[in-house]
Amino acid sequence: MQTGRIYLFPSSLGDVPPSEVLPQRNIELLRGVRHFVVEELRTARRFLKACDRSIVIDDLHFEVLNEHTSSDEVEAMLAPALTGEDIGVISEAGCPAVADPGADLVAAAQRRGIEICPLVGPSSILLSLMASGFNGQSFAFEGYLPIDAGRRAARLREMEKSVRTRRQTQIFIETPYRNNRLVAELARTLSPDMLLCVAADLTGPRQSVRTLSLRRWRNETYDYDKIPAIFLIYS
Amino acid sequence: MQTGRIYLFPSSLGDVPPSEVLPQRNIELLRGVRHFVVEELRTARRFLKACDRSIVIDDLHFEVLNEHTSSDEVEAMLAPALTGEDIGVISEAGCPAVADPGADLVAAAQRRGIEICPLVGPSSILLSLMASGFNGQSFAFEGYLPIDAGRRAARLREMEKSVRTRRQTQIFIETPYRNNRLVAELARTLSPDMLLCVAADLTGPRQSVRTLSLRRWRNETYDYDKIPAIFLIYS
Repeated sequence: MQTGRIYLFPSSLGDVPPSEVLPQRNIELLRGVRHFVVEELRTARRFLKACDRSIVIDDLHFEVLNEHTSSDEVEAMLAPALTGEDIGVISEAGCPAVADPGADLVAAAQRRGIEICPLVGPSSILLSLMASGFNGQSFAFEGYLPIDAGRRAARLREMEKSVRTRRQTQIFIETPYRNNRLVAELARTLSPDMLLCVAADLTGPRQSVRTLSLRRWRNETYDYDKIPAIFLIYS
Repeated sequence: MQTGRIYLFPSSLGDVPPSEVLPQRNIELLRGVRHFVVEELRTARRFLKACDRSIVIDDLHFEVLNEHTSSDEVEAMLAPALTGEDIGVISEAGCPAVADPGADLVAAAQRRGIEICPLVGPSSILLSLMASGFNGQSFAFEGYLPIDAGRRAARLREMEKSVRTRRQTQIFIETPYRNNRLVAELARTLSPDMLLCVAADLTGPRQSVRTLSLRRWRNETYDYDKIPAIFLIYS
């Protein structure tokens, strides 16, 4: 029997209508899928309804995959694909399997030779890199900075060094309520000639992408409090 | 006077119809833009026509931005935005300003405080990362491997080390006619337990994304000759 495929369905970042940020083809493919593996049930159902109001949620099967899911449970979620059914993966925001537990499902599927179909959608990493003006031929995404002060300072120094010696753009994120503190911290601790790009509310109504030297960020007025944002440094 | 915006319009990877890989909103925005900065004139015109056959190419203004463009010329390309007109940037394939000269235009625009609007579209880096099953919380894209044998071997060792010690997925590309040689080289030179993902013809009719250990790649049948591909390693 032919195995099913695993479709990786990106979702909107924030409250943006799916049709603004997703190709129509994603929505057509979504209509044909009965089995979903989702990071958060409520968000996924809301997303499906926003894609197509005629989708009948109760006809669909959902499995929740989050950081508490064991690897045996992840393996079991592949069952529909092994009997020829397609599976759709939806993460809480943006591209599945990039910075969420969906990657474990994809890895398990790759081990079994199941076909994976990644679909186009919004990625704050890529969108911010495009709009920053920074080097896109060499870049690294590092997720969150460490919280521990010593390790955090060491990471920032290491990032600055990668910018200077390897011309590698450094990309990272912060918990939204700490955004303002992070900008102030970067302005205080990195070289004043280093460039910082802050990309906030990407694809959303308050979208802004600003690149300034840290010297200028020091005297700049900004408020990114609780707005999803991503940070990039380069020189 | 209000300055215009710079829209970064991703294009298809290969011969795929734009509507399959781009949100409808991109095409609506495209219709309102009169000034374009493009990497390659012929490709850009063909892309615009594929987005909307009713677009009258002769009514539009095009500037070509490639690796031969001087920084003075790049600055001059911002002129329409300074008088309130929007500018659309289109690269030869995929997301502009990631691995092409569009980044220089964006950097110049950021220095002048012009608003940059990055739009959603296909990125082989992101699509391959999603489908690889590898770590998306920490990854680096490095463009092409060095050609010089010594520097190339050193880069491969460094990448293997970043996978092992930092759990950082390593992403890179190769000139398509050397793809098969690259896979064989990686299978020969990296640890047999390292995982290699080859993502080929992403979004296209021959799309395939395969993750196998290098031990298995050694004995695998494959032919990626002249197919656009991207390579990822992890363990």
